[in-house]
Amino acid sequence: MTKLTTVQLNAPYLILIGDLGDATYAKTGLGIVQWRPDLVAGQLRFEGCEIDMGVPDMTVAEAAKAGVKSLLIGVAPIGGVVPDSWWASIEEAAGAGMDIICGLHFRLADFPKLVASAESSGARLIDVRRPPANLPVGTGIKRSGKRVLMVGTDCAIGKKYSALALDQAMREAGMNSTFRATGQTGIMLAGEGLPIDAVVADFISGAAELISPDNYEDHWDVIEGQGSLFHPGYAGVSLGLLHGSQPDAFVLCHDATRTVISGWEHFALPSIQDCIDQHVLMGSRTNPDIRCVGISVNTSALPADERLDYLANLSNETGLPCVDPLIDGCGAIVEHIKQLYSED
Amino acid sequence: MTKLTTVQLNAPYLILIGDLGDATYAKTGLGIVQWRPDLVAGQLRFEGCEIDMGVPDMTVAEAAKAGVKSLLIGVAPIGGVVPDSWWASIEEAAGAGMDIICGLHFRLADFPKLVASAESSGARLIDVRRPPANLPVGTGIKRSGKRVLMVGTDCAIGKKYSALALDQAMREAGMNSTFRATGQTGIMLAGEGLPIDAVVADFISGAAELISPDNYEDHWDVIEGQGSLFHPGYAGVSLGLLHGSQPDAFVLCHDATRTVISGWEHFALPSIQDCIDQHVLMGSRTNPDIRCVGISVNTSALPADERLDYLANLSNETGLPCVDPLIDGCGAIVEHIKQLYSED
Repeated sequence: MTKLTTVQLNAPYLILIGDLGDATYAKTGLGIVQWRPDLVAGQLRFEGCEIDMGVPDMTVAEAAKAGVKSLLIGVAPIGGVVPDSWWASIEEAAGAGMDIICGLHFRLADFPKLVASAESSGARLIDVRRPPANLPVGTGIKRSGKRVLMVGTDCAIGKKYSALALDQAMREAGMNSTFRATGQTGIMLAGEGLPIDAVVADFISGAAELISPDNYEDHWDVIEGQGSLFHPGYAGVSLGLLHGSQPDAFVLCHDATRTVISGWEHFALPSIQDCIDQHVLMGSRTNPDIRCVGISVNTSALPADERLDYLANLSNETGLPCVDPLIDGCGAIVEHIKQLYSED
Repeated sequence: MTKLTTVQLNAPYLILIGDLGDATYAKTGLGIVQWRPDLVAGQLRFEGCEIDMGVPDMTVAEAAKAGVKSLLIGVAPIGGVVPDSWWASIEEAAGAGMDIICGLHFRLADFPKLVASAESSGARLIDVRRPPANLPVGTGIKRSGKRVLMVGTDCAIGKKYSALALDQAMREAGMNSTFRATGQTGIMLAGEGLPIDAVVADFISGAAELISPDNYEDHWDVIEGQGSLFHPGYAGVSLGLLHGSQPDAFVLCHDATRTVISGWEHFALPSIQDCIDQHVLMGSRTNPDIRCVGISVNTSALPADERLDYLANLSNETGLPCVDPLIDGCGAIVEHIKQLYSED
């Protein structure tokens, strides 16, 4: 029987930036350096590159010698393709035994010279947008340990950032936590995970169960969310993730000035209270104790003098800690979690 | 741009039964003869076959001459494989220009001689379990015409049968209706559809939108359901199908004696009222007018003298017509639909 597993990456990474001139397109690499510097051995830059991620420059040969395990393509260029001139280095890395990690839309396996290089050394070609072939159907069987899932009033509303910030704040507060990834960028940051929106529909909750396996009773999985239960395109993904994650707690992510579903403007955003209530209702199917433990709000589009009032009012209405994670951090949510679960 | 489309089959079919000895394994073929005899030109049987579906026997050569468009593998044998001795006939049909239609788990494209035969004639090899590669994300934009979706307290609880019976009863009552298929057997019966549980998670509601396109205002799509909103493994499929179908109405399918999710016995079946309420709540996101119009109950495991009381009590509790479609037909539900929507 094939072992059921998430996508598993090997660190440390050499991050390929190439000859990129605009940092906008290097946000994958920059995000890893920001959140997980411990995974990064160095950067691979070519002549003309105008970005410096502040980590050591390394050639492929130097990285191989230093025991670097993977070359990670750290860019998302316009058109989603890698310039022809970069492939020689990618092939060299594969030939030297380094896994190639890519989150772009093309398939590494469609490049025959790269495939040959990887086969010669035993290196893996890992498209983090593609889930493994063997995934289980969700069982709904309760797993040990605690879980907090990010959910949202919409897509692209700060769920990944909130999860990373909450995980960091939990560890800073001395808690035992792990960020769990459900999308390609998150997988590169976590070193493992599954792209939940790319699995076959029958296996959404089963994939979610694999992402946060049994753990110590005091351990918290901080699970990146996907989509929204209120999104006319993606709600199925969100419900399967909710059921499979079996979260004890969830953090609702919201944008203070968004009123309609982004790109689906004929759909109003749900109210905060409806969003909380429906997640409790649906989530209680696999975890009857589910509750909302905080609200993470992107307030960047609010005038500075309205920001604090907005969060204070929302906190009064809901009885929950409300933060902008980029400005306030997630400490208030961590404190609330500690209080709620201290007796456990 | 690639045209977005459902799986589209060409009738009439020649149904391959081969040398099968046990009708249990021919239920695919028997179901098509039962529900859609108009699609069936004949049966292809080999020496030793002990099943007769009551349609003309035809050789491949006779079928090709008679203008038969597809050879449909009408069996689901143990192990899910077709006996070696059958392949010559399947290849002959493909070589004669007939599409090959298969709902088993293997891939027709993995049989090189069959692929060569199909290529020589331009015939298509159609695995109805596999969705087309290009599917859209759900838009949530309202479509014209009316839709009734089958939903269930569990999987495998009579949703396909109920949809077929309701569609038939609607047409017998002079209504303009079409059965819409969301699973492999349904697709063979309808001649088109999409296997909704096999699409990539991001495209569930988009696939559902393709299945029941714009139609006349008085036309009803009767949509086969999949999974259950309460199923710990498959709820994501069910929610995406609910959102994408935008049903005006739904029929709740139930088994009178089932108390737990089949195969997931640690999960109680939801109450009928909870099941109605949650489908109204979640379905109203893409169709605010959604309502339950009837309950279809499998009463086969009830003692005969309890059956009528059971249905009468359920009808009293819910104010809805409650039928066992196999015994009572769906006429009572059709009458209720006619009353509710007559003023439209």
